[in-house]
Amino acid sequence: MIFIGERINTGFKSIKNAVLNKDGDVIRECARKQANGKADYLDVNLGAASNNPEDLCWMIEMVQEEVDLPICIDNNKPQMLKETIPVCKRPPLVNSVIADEKKLDEILPIVKQYGASLIGLAMDESGSPATADKRVENAGLIVAKFMEYDIPTDKLFLDPIVMPLKFMQNQAVEILQASSQFGLFADPPCHIVCGLSNISNGAIHKGLINRIFATMLVANGLDAVIMNVNDEDLVDAILTAELIMNKSIYADSYLEAFKR
Amino acid sequence: MIFIGERINTGFKSIKNAVLNKDGDVIRECARKQANGKADYLDVNLGAASNNPEDLCWMIEMVQEEVDLPICIDNNKPQMLKETIPVCKRPPLVNSVIADEKKLDEILPIVKQYGASLIGLAMDESGSPATADKRVENAGLIVAKFMEYDIPTDKLFLDPIVMPLKFMQNQAVEILQASSQFGLFADPPCHIVCGLSNISNGAIHKGLINRIFATMLVANGLDAVIMNVNDEDLVDAILTAELIMNKSIYADSYLEAFKR
Repeated sequence: MIFIGERINTGFKSIKNAVLNKDGDVIRECARKQANGKADYLDVNLGAASNNPEDLCWMIEMVQEEVDLPICIDNNKPQMLKETIPVCKRPPLVNSVIADEKKLDEILPIVKQYGASLIGLAMDESGSPATADKRVENAGLIVAKFMEYDIPTDKLFLDPIVMPLKFMQNQAVEILQASSQFGLFADPPCHIVCGLSNISNGAIHKGLINRIFATMLVANGLDAVIMNVNDEDLVDAILTAELIMNKSIYADSYLEAFKR
Repeated sequence: MIFIGERINTGFKSIKNAVLNKDGDVIRECARKQANGKADYLDVNLGAASNNPEDLCWMIEMVQEEVDLPICIDNNKPQMLKETIPVCKRPPLVNSVIADEKKLDEILPIVKQYGASLIGLAMDESGSPATADKRVENAGLIVAKFMEYDIPTDKLFLDPIVMPLKFMQNQAVEILQASSQFGLFADPPCHIVCGLSNISNGAIHKGLINRIFATMLVANGLDAVIMNVNDEDLVDAILTAELIMNKSIYADSYLEAFKR
């Protein structure tokens, strides 16, 4: 599993304040904590806190001062990407683009130039998809564009778009079906990623719902996830799911080995 | 989910002693505890403690003195079933038969006569199946026999045969694939059941492995399970899995509502 730490996001007040006050310690500490949680990438999201590329560059630099992890740049504006990707010491993952020809034609040349990877959302300008079929159609358009631009398809992370169980209960099954089909698209296969916590939005038993849905997604091909990497129960569930799917080798101490 | 309590089994020393000493309190208490754990059936297994049908009848009677739940008779000997099924106040579930014509021809007339249900193991005389295909082939033979005897196919609980992850790691995926195909066999559909705890046999993180595998099985059609019904974390995982699969209606208090 490719674990992507979600926490460096100005949607969290402490991060927003850190950006506004240029308090690097807060960002560094958050990066360290997620690295200790075995993150593979750290998502960095400037959100609505600012439109200034320098602020996003600053966040990335603070992270890179503390940890040697690649960045997941949570921004879809071409100009922003052109200014921030060069700051990344390692090829970043760009989060994200939708299934829209014009947007893909803007972003794919940048992604290709820097050897970056890209999260492709299985939605289009009309909004969130209602069915597995629509998700597959949207994802297919993005895959085709990767091929058109001759970018290796394993640089593409397809996201089936997770909807809250509480408000759209019938969507979970559609998401699982779509994920299992995403695995058949290309060779090398695309990665399958999601923003997990949306599934439990508004629910009381958030942690449990996150764990159980993540488990089912792993059974349907998920191999990357944006999540709270410090949620040990969630990490344990995902590691166990991968063990059951025969994606890692059994050892009695498989959980402890991962955390070492 | 049809929860089948596994605990009244002479493989547990306290149960074995209770049977040998005809200590009804132990059986009644165990039945009550599992009923409080929301069991739908109680498995009753005389095991190797005795070959005397009267002992199995006694166990069933003790359970029925205490709780109003149907019995899952864990025995496959025709003579034993002929003597014990009539003791059951409610139509029992017989556990189990393998995919063998001769054995099916012995047991199905008894099952039909009493309106019982039957667990059909997806294995044959040659032993445990190694692939999903072999499981489907074995299950298909049992389904065909149900049709031949004109027994409704929803009286059949197909068991894909769970193998220990620790010793046969590649089997879990085969079991999941087989389960998803079992759902397509018949109309009305057969139930899909398993003896869950075998997956974690010999493992250290038993509870976690049980929960994660159960979750994946629910995503692949499992609707009945022989398990420790007093394992609350396991029950919570299964209830959440069914919620995600849209098999129950979302409420913030879905866990609490079940336990009420």
